[in-house]
Amino acid sequence: MRCDCADVLRDLPYRIGDKWTAHVLRGLQHGRRRFSELRAEMPGVTPKVLTETLRAMERDGTVTREAFDENPPRVEYELTGQGVKMLGLLDLCCAWARENLVETDAS
Amino acid sequence: MRCDCADVLRDLPYRIGDKWTAHVLRGLQHGRRRFSELRAEMPGVTPKVLTETLRAMERDGTVTREAFDENPPRVEYELTGQGVKMLGLLDLCCAWARENLVETDAS
Repeated sequence: MRCDCADVLRDLPYRIGDKWTAHVLRGLQHGRRRFSELRAEMPGVTPKVLTETLRAMERDGTVTREAFDENPPRVEYELTGQGVKMLGLLDLCCAWARENLVETDAS
Repeated sequence: MRCDCADVLRDLPYRIGDKWTAHVLRGLQHGRRRFSELRAEMPGVTPKVLTETLRAMERDGTVTREAFDENPPRVEYELTGQGVKMLGLLDLCCAWARENLVETDAS
């Protein structure tokens, strides 16, 4: 099941990594994606900020980047084992939010 | 079991609420505490910052404040039902960290 947490990540009482990290984890949860594909799934992110987020995640060891020598150039991103672990954390937090915050909104 | 996450909260890849929120949740997990008791459990926090954190948590509905008309004045804080829910989220995240991050540190 695709979690729709991207829509509500701003309002949650927790943050996974930096501001856009959770969005990237969701964007890559079903496998490797091109930069343009990731960007299309993240409304509101600028190319500069997405690039910075991906570089930070590469440094942290949660994402790998592969550049293909094609014309036009193709660059793909994929979660590492550590990235998949962080996705598991995000799943836990999203499950918590579904159980607890919907009820709160209704009260 | 008391979670010792306070020691490592700065290094975790997630944040619950604002910077000191998780520390306050832990400080109140066993029941109501005076301001001075909370402060003693949170090395590095200034009285000003702890006051701001507690006010923000009051506004968010995770903490209640009770002032007793004594001399010297006594003020106690306690988690609300919503605060206990957030403590549950913190427990989930701490459990994840224990399972995943120790292994990472060792590799």
